[in-house]
Amino acid sequence: MTAIGRRRWAIAGGHIPLRTTGPEPECTSSDTLCVLNAADAEAVVQITIFYADREPVGPYRLAVLPRRVRQVRFNDLIDPEAMPLDTDYALIVESSVPVVVQFSRRDTSQAENAIATTLAYPVD
Amino acid sequence: MTAIGRRRWAIAGGHIPLRTTGPEPECTSSDTLCVLNAADAEAVVQITIFYADREPVGPYRLAVLPRRVRQVRFNDLIDPEAMPLDTDYALIVESSVPVVVQFSRRDTSQAENAIATTLAYPVD
Amino acid sequence: MTAIGRRRWAIAGGHIPLRTTGPEPECTSSDTLCVLNAADAEAVVQITIFYADREPVGPYRLAVLPRRVRQVRFNDLIDPEAMPLDTDYALIVESSVPVVVQFSRRDTSQAENAIATTLAYPVD
Amino acid sequence: MTAIGRRRWAIAGGHIPLRTTGPEPECTSSDTLCVLNAADAEAVVQITIFYADREPVGPYRLAVLPRRVRQVRFNDLIDPEAMPLDTDYALIVESSVPVVVQFSRRDTSQAENAIATTLAYPVD
Repeated sequence: MTAIGRRRWAIAGGHIPLRTTGPEPECTSSDTLCVLNAADAEAVVQITIFYADREPVGPYRLAVLPRRVRQVRFNDLIDPEAMPLDTDYALIVESSVPVVVQFSRRDTSQAENAIATTLAYPVD
Repeated sequence: MTAIGRRRWAIAGGHIPLRTTGPEPECTSSDTLCVLNAADAEAVVQITIFYADREPVGPYRLAVLPRRVRQVRFNDLIDPEAMPLDTDYALIVESSVPVVVQFSRRDTSQAENAIATTLAYPVD
Repeated sequence: MTAIGRRRWAIAGGHIPLRTTGPEPECTSSDTLCVLNAADAEAVVQITIFYADREPVGPYRLAVLPRRVRQVRFNDLIDPEAMPLDTDYALIVESSVPVVVQFSRRDTSQAENAIATTLAYPVD
Repeated sequence: MTAIGRRRWAIAGGHIPLRTTGPEPECTSSDTLCVLNAADAEAVVQITIFYADREPVGPYRLAVLPRRVRQVRFNDLIDPEAMPLDTDYALIVESSVPVVVQFSRRDTSQAENAIATTLAYPVD
């Protein structure tokens, strides 16, 4: 299996809702970063988070093993710092090998689920 | 950090719902434009709104500071004119530096949240 | 304003739900095709619908005036024939001038709204 | 009608919810793979599923007849093995002729529908 995808991806529309309803953790409001590493080498992934009113924070480091997918909730990114809720953000993903990146959201701030997903932007 | 993205983007599927339910402003029905400026220079962004039955309106002007994201509700675009609710629209985004653009919708016209998001079209 | 986009687009994931709840027409379950024509010439658009178990149907013809957006519910496509509900379909859009195409869905088959949207595939 | 699309596509954000509410099968929680084959030749499609913590599984084989769309629920992929629920996965689609691939999700784990859809990543 050869490497598939790009080494850099960007997502402009991040925002983790403040409220959560329903059973946790499966119904926790969250944004999720999905990274597919189809290559035979480990992907060393670095994430930089951009905000509206302060300097970018990062890199958050993530390893994705060869031939594996890793789906990470942004709520779980805590080093170098936990991400604030109810705050607009964007991100750039940089990987040591080509990967494929998708962005998903679950919003349970009202009683029922709402979900959304989009392919990230593959940087040229 | 180098500039990432494109200078022109297009979105064909805009439509702000008429009705809103739930606590405001977080549950207000809205379309949101998300612009990531990863460059070290300010992005001067111009938005042109297209309608079904009249000439385009614009430009709406927006500044996005270096290394910042800006997420703007279309409900808040008021100069040169406020956008009508319950009306189909599309838009073209033109930026002085490369940016990444995503489009999100929150629809609370019935009791619960519904959300959607998509990468905008990166113009060649 | 110059023409923006592509002359051919494809959407693989069409499916109009059978059931509708809530006030009509704004809550009618529907798939919507969104076409932005930023050019100064009219776009003559031809849509071909693909099904799982019979030959493609079309072309459905659509005019999009210069500098206009047109958002059409598939429920309203009736010539050469109305589209069946609760049936998987796909489509190819061919336009006389470059356009931008987005695909949206509203599903009210249960009591509340659900929505989804994605950029269509820009054919090379 | 000429072939349209790509021979390889990738999706990073798969996850079939565990719970389902509402009438089956139309409200069953599911991820759906949508494949449009606009060509005049049959598409022989092979799907490889990637997981977070074990080796990829596949190929799952799928035929898409000429000028047809096929929308397959991942719940229905059972050979070489049924896919586990409530488990993160990703996939690569490889086709003998160019096709267009879209990914959709229906989540009814709470009382109401939630839906999401995105174009898959067209591999270069």
